[in-house]
Amino acid sequence: MNRFFKKKEPSDIVKKLVVKVIMERSLITEGDRILIAVSGGKDSSVLAWALSAVRPALKFNYELAGLHISTDFCACCKKSILIKRLQDWGIPFSDLYVPVIGRLQEGEKMNCYWCSTQRRTELLKYAVENGFNKIALGHHLDDIVETFFMNLCTKGELSTMPVLLKYRKYPVSLIRPLALLEEKQIISCAEEQKILKNACTCPYGQNSNRRSIRKKIEDFTDKDGEIKRRILKALGGGKVDYLIDN
Amino acid sequence: MNRFFKKKEPSDIVKKLVVKVIMERSLITEGDRILIAVSGGKDSSVLAWALSAVRPALKFNYELAGLHISTDFCACCKKSILIKRLQDWGIPFSDLYVPVIGRLQEGEKMNCYWCSTQRRTELLKYAVENGFNKIALGHHLDDIVETFFMNLCTKGELSTMPVLLKYRKYPVSLIRPLALLEEKQIISCAEEQKILKNACTCPYGQNSNRRSIRKKIEDFTDKDGEIKRRILKALGGGKVDYLIDN
Repeated sequence: MNRFFKKKEPSDIVKKLVVKVIMERSLITEGDRILIAVSGGKDSSVLAWALSAVRPALKFNYELAGLHISTDFCACCKKSILIKRLQDWGIPFSDLYVPVIGRLQEGEKMNCYWCSTQRRTELLKYAVENGFNKIALGHHLDDIVETFFMNLCTKGELSTMPVLLKYRKYPVSLIRPLALLEEKQIISCAEEQKILKNACTCPYGQNSNRRSIRKKIEDFTDKDGEIKRRILKALGGGKVDYLIDN
Repeated sequence: MNRFFKKKEPSDIVKKLVVKVIMERSLITEGDRILIAVSGGKDSSVLAWALSAVRPALKFNYELAGLHISTDFCACCKKSILIKRLQDWGIPFSDLYVPVIGRLQEGEKMNCYWCSTQRRTELLKYAVENGFNKIALGHHLDDIVETFFMNLCTKGELSTMPVLLKYRKYPVSLIRPLALLEEKQIISCAEEQKILKNACTCPYGQNSNRRSIRKKIEDFTDKDGEIKRRILKALGGGKVDYLIDN
């Protein structure tokens, strides 16, 4: 192959798109203390790898740390592998136990909303108590587009996961540095970097609504990442003055 | 059939949803002089019929008139049928000739954008000169949802045809009273009321992008009108503070 037209490695694509979103949306600034929520799965692992790997490309200093939240229905993660992995990337590791089921009131059933609210609250609390001003989450382009379409079609709302969310009540912002990456690009990078999945599959099963909408979006966009990025652009464009009423 | 559970006639559904959108979005108010753009096709014909038929359900007076725009590539419409039809509904008729092709500069080709801009400009001018303060267009829910998805996926913009558009430069507003109606509901009403299509098919062909997105939207929404109306609600909700940045 002509060396001038060498195919880009998956890890190069990840680094490029992570730097792009960080710069375009000012996700990271000088002196940030960033807490990465690491489940051990591919998305958050590639996120931790990428935030470490793009240091040379960014012109400012920032601190990284990983936090893993264990629950009372999923304690089997091979944490030692996760710790070793983050260590290799120069990221210190902490662990927090949240008894999600144990906190249910009598008669209440376990559900995604309850679990994620409990974990999000503890994550925020930990960040504030330990002086972090940013929390990095591993949601990617497909997650953001899916949430947009779910909220559009089921709630009748224009909303999705923000790439940058500044809390009013807490001195912390959420950032999603994988926002420009399709899931398949993250999987390719994980394979190239030998980052194996190292988290439990949730025993309460995947949200079937989300699975069905994921399939529909693939058909709708012809699996074209450019269309998804155009949708992301629309959601972030702030140009909404030509909708239904004016 | 039990008379208490009599199936609603298509014309009842059209009247109900036209009154609903007029009231919810204040499309018509006391004393309005409304110019209906009538091509002779099913959508604008059902619009004219409906605006006349809902008079008893609305508590205010308004004036209706129909304007047909002929062009130099489509002059074959059986105008006498259209005139008779509007007369039956108590709506006076006018006709305007716009030489769309004749106005092309040398070397320019005919296209949808040019044609619609020319006709829209003449429509506005006619309305202003003749003292109309509202122009009613026959676009329906499927048109609005399609335009939303086309702009989202091709332009990366959150925009569509507004249900109510107030012009800043002219003392005229555009209204789309069929906004809550699916195309199939309009077709059923046209059949029930024996409103036959009475317009030329555009010789420049249907926009193939629009046809392809129409098919995809049907798959995406499972042809469920409720989902489309939820999308319309989102587009008109004005709740856009939870998008990408905050």
